[in-house]
Amino acid sequence: MANPALNIALNRVEALPSVVLRYKSAVSAAMRKSLADDTLPVYEMLRYSIGWADLNGVRAEAAEGKALRPTLCLFACEATGGSVSKALPAAVALELIHNFSLIHDDIQDRDETRHHRPTLWAVWGEPKALVAGNILRVIADMSLWRLIESGLSHQESLNATGLLTDAYLKMIEGQYLDLSYESRPDIGMRDYLEMIAKKTGALIRCALNLGAMIGTRDTRTVQAFRDCGRSLGLVFQVRDDVLGIWGQEQATGKPVGADIRRKKNSLPVVYAMSRAKGKDKDTLQDIYRRPTVGDDDVTTALNIMDKVKTREFAYSLAQEHRDRAIESVAGIELAPGAVEDLKELAEFLLAREH
Amino acid sequence: MANPALNIALNRVEALPSVVLRYKSAVSAAMRKSLADDTLPVYEMLRYSIGWADLNGVRAEAAEGKALRPTLCLFACEATGGSVSKALPAAVALELIHNFSLIHDDIQDRDETRHHRPTLWAVWGEPKALVAGNILRVIADMSLWRLIESGLSHQESLNATGLLTDAYLKMIEGQYLDLSYESRPDIGMRDYLEMIAKKTGALIRCALNLGAMIGTRDTRTVQAFRDCGRSLGLVFQVRDDVLGIWGQEQATGKPVGADIRRKKNSLPVVYAMSRAKGKDKDTLQDIYRRPTVGDDDVTTALNIMDKVKTREFAYSLAQEHRDRAIESVAGIELAPGAVEDLKELAEFLLAREH
Repeated sequence: MANPALNIALNRVEALPSVVLRYKSAVSAAMRKSLADDTLPVYEMLRYSIGWADLNGVRAEAAEGKALRPTLCLFACEATGGSVSKALPAAVALELIHNFSLIHDDIQDRDETRHHRPTLWAVWGEPKALVAGNILRVIADMSLWRLIESGLSHQESLNATGLLTDAYLKMIEGQYLDLSYESRPDIGMRDYLEMIAKKTGALIRCALNLGAMIGTRDTRTVQAFRDCGRSLGLVFQVRDDVLGIWGQEQATGKPVGADIRRKKNSLPVVYAMSRAKGKDKDTLQDIYRRPTVGDDDVTTALNIMDKVKTREFAYSLAQEHRDRAIESVAGIELAPGAVEDLKELAEFLLAREH
Repeated sequence: MANPALNIALNRVEALPSVVLRYKSAVSAAMRKSLADDTLPVYEMLRYSIGWADLNGVRAEAAEGKALRPTLCLFACEATGGSVSKALPAAVALELIHNFSLIHDDIQDRDETRHHRPTLWAVWGEPKALVAGNILRVIADMSLWRLIESGLSHQESLNATGLLTDAYLKMIEGQYLDLSYESRPDIGMRDYLEMIAKKTGALIRCALNLGAMIGTRDTRTVQAFRDCGRSLGLVFQVRDDVLGIWGQEQATGKPVGADIRRKKNSLPVVYAMSRAKGKDKDTLQDIYRRPTVGDDDVTTALNIMDKVKTREFAYSLAQEHRDRAIESVAGIELAPGAVEDLKELAEFLLAREH
């Protein structure tokens, strides 16, 4: 394999794109402000879930995420001529909604750890974790109200709320589809693409759409960023699915083959299921029908996936959409350096290791 | 006992107030429209949860609720000079949020039936029920967008969204408090009242507040309805707690003593715990500390509650707040018949049997 991104190196934690680092402290400060409430212990749970506190409520920094969605939103706003501060309430809302979805996802999937830390429901029990997630979702809504203070009109502010709500509905509809696909061997590539366009695509698309909408009133530019977001969402999810199978535990917190063990209908298995022939196909289907999947099964499934060149397929699909993302904004006048930032972001999504 | 409302009659299902019946068909039609989506099977789950379909998706009517919150909202709008149609999107949003909270509540409490029908998680499993609840919450948000079509300005529409979101946050904070109180014998009357003001009070208060806000621009009138809602919320919850212990299974779907068996920290036990003395107090605390509560324990607890006149206390507390609710709007000019409607509504909340 000539392409280095196909080989996921052990222990290598790649640098974040400069555009992520540029916005990191502004996003972090605004998010902390929106979760500064101390009236109820549930806010301590939320600060823990985002990675700002350990289980005793003591300040911690280690586990904070990449803040990808806020970065995309702020980038789109700056690239189209707006200021970071104007889009900050929307950026915070996006990240809070993302974190809300992780809390509920962990309950649904019965995941006991995330990023090497116990999940909310594993520590506080399911009822409280469920409520905590719902609270985070409301705080996200409330963050958007600050767009008025940022100088948006009431109508623009309502439109922004509408965009986010719509993306959020698509996201949970996607979660529902994902759940419906579980242990169904008949899920094809078209079903899979429809599901991820909703489950992860909607919020990433919304991040660029919202940012551009706040940055400019030019509808052609906003549409271009929306299209760009659609493609970047796909790059993101395809890489996520690849990491779910070939990602290294040190980087992802999950062992190699994790998604095979969980019988998740992610891109690699959907692809391999459609490409494997004869005995290989039967074997793969058989593994995905078993109540539990053992180490040998994982090795067998990995071999079949290799045989039909699953990683190569995933990589070229992601590459194709990275190119489309960049083409989406061709011919649009952007702030200096914006195209380079976008390329760096797209490249990061294509080859990230966690 | 001289007061008939203290004796909860067997098999008597009281008539709904005329004001509820007046709005019923408008609310029902608008709600059905908002849930008419057929793109995903999750919408079938939602129609089932509201009582419009049986488990096979076949149309059913039996289980539809009282639609109390939409009624309060539409009543406040009409009473203050607005039209029913103007407040309808808000009324629908309130009822959908209420139904969303029931879906998540049933997951949290592991309740397998509601109104004699299996709950969503009991039929479709917890992950799908959780997601279905989240979807219902978004559809509620989206319903509010129609306020613009009803003739509200963007600013008024944003204010309405703000009110509802705020009420919703209080509601889930109240759910969190309720969970935190479980199996804690030190919960006093003040804690209890704080919790129910949030858990059920906020949405009922919001219903009257929102309706009045849509009906009139007079801030004194809106505030009066807000105060009225605060008191009605308390009447509602106190009666709910009484029914949770002394309600008859034919009417409530739960056996007498149900909330004792669940060791719920509702008004009757909080009151009895504070009033019982000596051996009675020890016995009550002992029962609430047991892992499971048997039939004899329920009888013993009921006797202790009778001894300290718990039902009488609850009834007089609810009466006091019914009077306050009606006093709140004294001196406010209202549409003809509005005061009589309010009295009928308040009386219904005070003495309803399911």
